[in-house]
Formats: sequence, C-alpha cells, structure tokens
Amino acid sequence: MAETYGTIDAQFLAALKDLTAEDRVSTSQALCEQHGTDESYHTAQAPDVVVFTLSTKEVSDVVKLCADHKVPVIPYGTGTSLEGHVAALHGGVCIDLSQMSQIMEVRPEDLDVSLQAGVTRKTLNEYLRDTGLFFPIDPGADASLGGMCATRASGTNAVRYGTMRENVLSLTVVTPSGEIVKTSSRAKKSAAGYDLTRLYIGAEGTLGIITEVTLRLYGIPESISSAICPFNSLEDAVNTVISTIQCGIPIARIELLDENQMEAVNKYSKLDYALSPTLFFEFHGSPAGVAEQVEMVKDLAEGYGGTDFQWAERQEDRDRLWTARHNAYYAALAMRPGCKGVSSDACVPISRLAEAIMETKADMEASSLYGTIVGHVGDGNFHALFVFDPDKPDELAEAKRLNARIVERAIRMEGTCTGEHGIGHGKMKYLESEFGEAGLEIMRSLKRALDPDNIMNPGKIVSL
Amino acid sequence: MAETYGTIDAQFLAALKDLTAEDRVSTSQALCEQHGTDESYHTAQAPDVVVFTLSTKEVSDVVKLCADHKVPVIPYGTGTSLEGHVAALHGGVCIDLSQMSQIMEVRPEDLDVSLQAGVTRKTLNEYLRDTGLFFPIDPGADASLGGMCATRASGTNAVRYGTMRENVLSLTVVTPSGEIVKTSSRAKKSAAGYDLTRLYIGAEGTLGIITEVTLRLYGIPESISSAICPFNSLEDAVNTVISTIQCGIPIARIELLDENQMEAVNKYSKLDYALSPTLFFEFHGSPAGVAEQVEMVKDLAEGYGGTDFQWAERQEDRDRLWTARHNAYYAALAMRPGCKGVSSDACVPISRLAEAIMETKADMEASSLYGTIVGHVGDGNFHALFVFDPDKPDELAEAKRLNARIVERAIRMEGTCTGEHGIGHGKMKYLESEFGEAGLEIMRSLKRALDPDNIMNPGKIVSL
Repeated sequence: MAETYGTIDAQFLAALKDLTAEDRVSTSQALCEQHGTDESYHTAQAPDVVVFTLSTKEVSDVVKLCADHKVPVIPYGTGTSLEGHVAALHGGVCIDLSQMSQIMEVRPEDLDVSLQAGVTRKTLNEYLRDTGLFFPIDPGADASLGGMCATRASGTNAVRYGTMRENVLSLTVVTPSGEIVKTSSRAKKSAAGYDLTRLYIGAEGTLGIITEVTLRLYGIPESISSAICPFNSLEDAVNTVISTIQCGIPIARIELLDENQMEAVNKYSKLDYALSPTLFFEFHGSPAGVAEQVEMVKDLAEGYGGTDFQWAERQEDRDRLWTARHNAYYAALAMRPGCKGVSSDACVPISRLAEAIMETKADMEASSLYGTIVGHVGDGNFHALFVFDPDKPDELAEAKRLNARIVERAIRMEGTCTGEHGIGHGKMKYLESEFGEAGLEIMRSLKRALDPDNIMNPGKIVSL
Repeated sequence: MAETYGTIDAQFLAALKDLTAEDRVSTSQALCEQHGTDESYHTAQAPDVVVFTLSTKEVSDVVKLCADHKVPVIPYGTGTSLEGHVAALHGGVCIDLSQMSQIMEVRPEDLDVSLQAGVTRKTLNEYLRDTGLFFPIDPGADASLGGMCATRASGTNAVRYGTMRENVLSLTVVTPSGEIVKTSSRAKKSAAGYDLTRLYIGAEGTLGIITEVTLRLYGIPESISSAICPFNSLEDAVNTVISTIQCGIPIARIELLDENQMEAVNKYSKLDYALSPTLFFEFHGSPAGVAEQVEMVKDLAEGYGGTDFQWAERQEDRDRLWTARHNAYYAALAMRPGCKGVSSDACVPISRLAEAIMETKADMEASSLYGTIVGHVGDGNFHALFVFDPDKPDELAEAKRLNARIVERAIRMEGTCTGEHGIGHGKMKYLESEFGEAGLEIMRSLKRALDPDNIMNPGKIVSL
C-alpha cells in the first residue's frame, strides 16, 4: 500500500504546527534520523518529521491529520526497541510521546496508577518511592511505559509478577482514524466484551497509539534478599533454575549469565564476580517467607554444585547487582567497541530450557563470532547476544544464521521466537513459522479491519 | 444480517451426518430446547439441530458446512452460562462439545495440561489428583474449560491465581470459515504478534469455536487452611476484605455471603452457620506462610468485630464448606421453588467496594423482591441475586430495575458491568455505557473482520 501514502509538504507541516506548536514540530535531519533508530542492528529509517505531543487530544488531532492525508504514523517512546520498531519504513510522522510524562494519579487504596505513556519505568518507581508501592516490570532499558505496553515487555521480575500483559488495567488509545478509546474500566477483572486492552498490548503501535496507561502496583515486599551464585557449568546453572520453577518456589528474580557475559559485566560495571556461569537471584516476601525460599533454593543449587552464594544485603548493593544485570546488553556490546548486537529472544517451555541453551552454547562455541548468553530463565526466556562488526557483512550474516537456528529450535520445542522484544520488522519472517498461515491471516484481518489504510507503524508485525 | 441466513433442510442434515455420525446429529425438540437454555432467566431459544462433535477436525468440517450455507453456529459446553450465551437467537446448528472430553497431555515438568474443550473443571481436578497439581479457576458451576475460556470465567480462587485470562497458555480455535488455528506456543510468555489467545478468551464463541486448550497448572499448596467468620454488619465484613487486599496479603480465597445468602446456604446444604454476613477464607502456602497470613487476617478481622473464626481443618470439611459456597446460586433459587434468578455481576475497584455493596443492600432492602448478596469480594466482584416468580412480570421488571442500578453504579465507580459472567445477549445494552461508542465500534470491527457473515453465535456481545 506504500504507493498510496500521501506526501508531507509545507502545507501539511503548517497544519501540524497549528495542531501542536511551532517548536514541537521538527524536520531536522539529525532529529529525524535519531527517531528512526533503535538500539538494534536493524537499518535505521528516518521519518519525514517528528512531532512532540503533550496530550491524548493532540495525538488524536495529529493522527486525524495523518489519516486525512494517508500519511504513516510511527509512535516513539525512548527508542530502546530491538527489532526496528521505530524505523519509518515508509516515511511519515513520528509522534514522540516522551514529553507526555505526567503521572496523573496514584491510588494506593486500589494499588494502581494512571499515567501518560511517556513516563519511563525508572521515573515511575522513583515517584512511587514514598508510597511503599512499586511497579515490577523492568526491561533492560529505562523504557517508556507506553512503549513497554506496545511491545508486551517483561524483564527480570516477570517470573513472579508477570509481564505487561498481566499488569495493565486499562489503556487510552488513539485509533488510526484519530478516535480516543478507553480499553477497559479500572476493575481488576472483567468479562465485558472483547479484550481490547490485550489487543493493543504487544501490537507495537500498528493498531493505534497508546497515550495513557493504568497499571497495577504492588506493595514493596517487607523483606527483599538478593544473591549471586556461580556454577561449574552452564548446565548446572540451568538445571537449578528448572528445579526452582518446577518446585513452585515463588522466586522474584532468577537470571542466568554465562561466563562471557560475566566477563563483560565485570568490565562494564567495574565488578569482580567469578568468571563462571552465574545465577542472579532475588526473593520477595515476609522475613519468614524469604528465609524459607532461600533455604529451598540453596538446597536445590547445592545439588548442582552451586554453593558459593554471595548476598547483597543493603539496598545499594542490591541496586548495584541489578544495574549490572540490566546493563548486560550494553556490557556485551562494549566488549567490541564500535560493534553492534544481534539479540536472540527465544522462550521455551521450562522443561526444554537446558536443551535449548546448551545447543545454543554449542553453536556459539563452534562459531568464530563473539557472543554471550543472558536470560530471564525462570520464564524459559534467554538471549544469545552476538556482537558483530557492522563493516564486516560476513559477521552479520553469521549472527543472523545463529539467530535463525535459535528461533527454529525454539519453535520446534513449542516455544516462541520472541519472549519480550517483539516482532518489529526484524522478526516478521518468523511469525509465520510460529503461527502458520491461518494464524497469520487472522493477524492480517485484525490489522486490515482496524487500520484499513495501513498508516499505523506500517511494515511491522504483518505486511498486507 | 439475519435475513441472509441459510435454512436447514434435509440435505443439510444429511451432510451434517456424513461429516460426523448419524447418532450424533439430533433435531429432537427436547434436546434442541435444552441446548438453547442456560441457567439464567433469559428466554431460551432452541437451535434447529444439535451435533455432538468428537474432534477439532469434525468441528472444522461442521463449521465449513455452516459457512457454505450461511447457517448460524452456537458452541455449547455445559449450558451453565448466565446471560443467554447459548440461546440460538437466529436458529442454526448447536455444536455440543461435551463429548470432546479427552485430557490429551499433562506435563508436570512444565506445569501445564492440554485438553479438549469439553473437559469440565471438576473432571480435570479429579484427573490431576495424583499428580500433586491442580487448576484453580472455579466458577460456581462445573463448567467446561472451553466454555470457561469463552466467557473469561473466574471464581473464588481468582483473587490469588487470576482468571482464565491469566491461566491459558494456548487455544486451538476453529474460525468462522472452518480454519484451524493455534493461538500461541506453550511458552510462558511471548511478544510474538497480536495476542490471539486473549482475543478468543471472553469472545463467547462469536469469533470462533475453542476446541482445545492448554492451561497453566499449579502445585497443590503444602498447606491449605479454610475458615468462615461471621460479622455484625455487612460493612464490617466488606471492610475486612478491603484491608486484606490493601495490605497485599496473598489470600487464596475471600468470599462474602450476606445473611440472606447464609440462610439459603444453610437450608440448601444442611448446615447451621450463623445467620450473619459472613466471610469464607482460604489460605495457601507453606505451613509458616499460611500461619503468617492467618495471623494478619485475624488481626484485621478483629478490628472489624470478626472474632469467631471457625476452621475447617480436614479436607472433607473444606470440601463441604466450598461446595456450599459454590452452590450459593442454586441455594438462593431454592428459597423460592419454581422461581428464577437475575444475578448482577458488577466488579469495582476495591476502594469503592463497600460503597457499591452497601448501596446495593439498601436498594435490596427497599425492594419487596427477595435477594441475596454473594461475591468474590477480594477482586471487587459481587453478585446480587434477585429471585423472581416467572409468572409475575412485575417481579422480573423489578429485578431488572435493581440490576440496572447496580450496573450504572459500578460503571460510575470505574468498574465493569460484568466481572465474570460475560455479556451474552443479556448485558449487551450495558456494553456501550461501559466502553462508549468508539470502543464498541472497535468491537464491531473485530467481529465484522473475523466473522463477516455473522454466523458465529450471532446476537451476542455486539449486534452488527
């Protein structure tokens, strides 16, 4: 449908400025390029113009203008996506929501918060600090909460608290025709009609733009305990994870880093952890509950030779530990300055995790390419990060080959090609192998029905 | 679109029998009437024919035949819905899935199970008994798991374990054109494309027929403790619930029954509980964890005058207690033999629960109609059951008037008209007040896109 898109001319830009403000509309090349670029290796593609909106009404006005002119619209939060989600493949208007950063209402009595989509996860948790509440979902980047909804993000706490799928009560969405829709009430559960909230979570801005979000919050646990524990082999570490999950221990975080990733983390975060496959743990609960969990997990780990638990007792020690973990991607990239990364994102049933990771590790060792393994293993989700020199096409080809093997393996094991990064345009080719033609056709039907002119983030998830 | 539906003639019936079996296709009046009737007060409407399918393939074949002839298709599980979901408003073929009752695979190592949609929740849990696993979602009726997916069911355990929305990994769905679609892998989380699983959960068979389900399972807790506690006033009981939830206590069940409901339960289940507003509790966890939870909740209850906890220690005592609770709807109906019930199903943010329930109780006391209040109050969800004589139109009108007030109040309090029963055709008029015209139009677009001939359970959720 690309040939039918309208062009952005002086008149269109003037209208855009009328709807928002002179100084919030930019066609600067540098700014446009930045807005077409995410943190992945995918080729960047600049939009024609970037507009910074301040309200749902403004987003609606801008989208209506774009709809009238059949101009593509690409929503932008923090640009930290990993599958080319923000690339303006057909040009168009990038709507930057980062200035929509108001936290509208925290309701401790309902354990929820309503905020504009541009608020980032760290900003939210800093804001909440005095309330005794927190929001657990934590992808590596300090992403915007609207973007986290759009990509169905998760992170290290998902093993206990679920992903964005489970933690959003309601969204305000601007549809491709510029209508404003509230997807749900604030009730904790509802059986009222089609699940519009879950329809937009993970839709990557292809069905509408999320402008406001109501999230579930949790009380900060009375007791929190973090630790790391090195293992003699990757397999021992993974088997400890599998046993922990199969025993139903309500662990808050259980993360795997292989020895390469530990080396990268040490260098990047100036730490001196052992250069062994390592698990990062966190336990949440009452003091007695945490003590119980810790005992059980220590017993399990010991069975696999993991005996050297190092505890982070103080808040600042815990923060250092988890910041190091969150920076794993950047740490791996920093091992080869100037290089870029291909991050796989397979997620498999927990019983297949050891197999999936060990076969990945064998592929990695057989390859000349540098890579690390890191993962939210409690959910069966892990990333192999392949670091390649963008000036060496062979290296990128090798990274893609290895990634394709991981995806094919995950799907064969009844898993998914992406646990949390999403499809963007980077993983579209894997969607059909995962869902089959019939499933993909339903996705296309949804897209056609809700965005008949294909103006919303076109070229992502499905092509029409 | 009703005028365009095809007719069911001898040739069609012969084709149906060819696709399935002579003795699994019936046009018996009694059988058809039974299949058009649910447990609600809504007028029953018989399909023209009932077909008992044995496999996804058979469902697909039957749906293809219906699609070719533009004949409506109504899926049927156990007929325990409460908003007229199974009424064949435009005639057509009822596909009864109750004989699709195979439990295909239990995977203890992945904490999941795959089964045909006709398996009921009690059958599943009996089957699982020796595995140490259970499936927590428990609407009052012994519904089929396919039906529970279709209505986004919940029940007494949802406060801790979530609803069907959170506990389904994957579905096999037959689309309105007869295609067979798998909605997801078995991975615990995924960011791969649109959330097809959640699209069909709660769609009440209007977008396709769920034929197979993969569910999450949980380990049976090491320690389980149940109790009831009477309170001096409804308000005291509700405030105990609100405090429990706001403190973040991970209670497994916390259910409210008002004094009328307690009287009904006593009579129906031959018990002699006090005739006071009463909370039913259940605690799951390790022995220490349960002891901790019990202490906290006892403290909170005491603050509201609830001191007389009666514990059900043995499995059979717990079963008796919860069976009595699950039969609450039938118990209320039995108070006026020959009568029917209108059950409200509002769900509100927990902070508004006391207000919502007290205003409902005041309405009930001001009315001449007999009614009870019972609810999954930990989720902010409660039912006012109004029992009316079907021969007295004034009584039904009064029940509907009271129900409308409850819905209006719930929506005003940022809640929903239905926490778990669904829309069917009974609550369609409330859907627009809850979602607005823009939200409803999206639902209509989804329905039109996926079922352009409107053959799947037509006249439910949205009218086109």
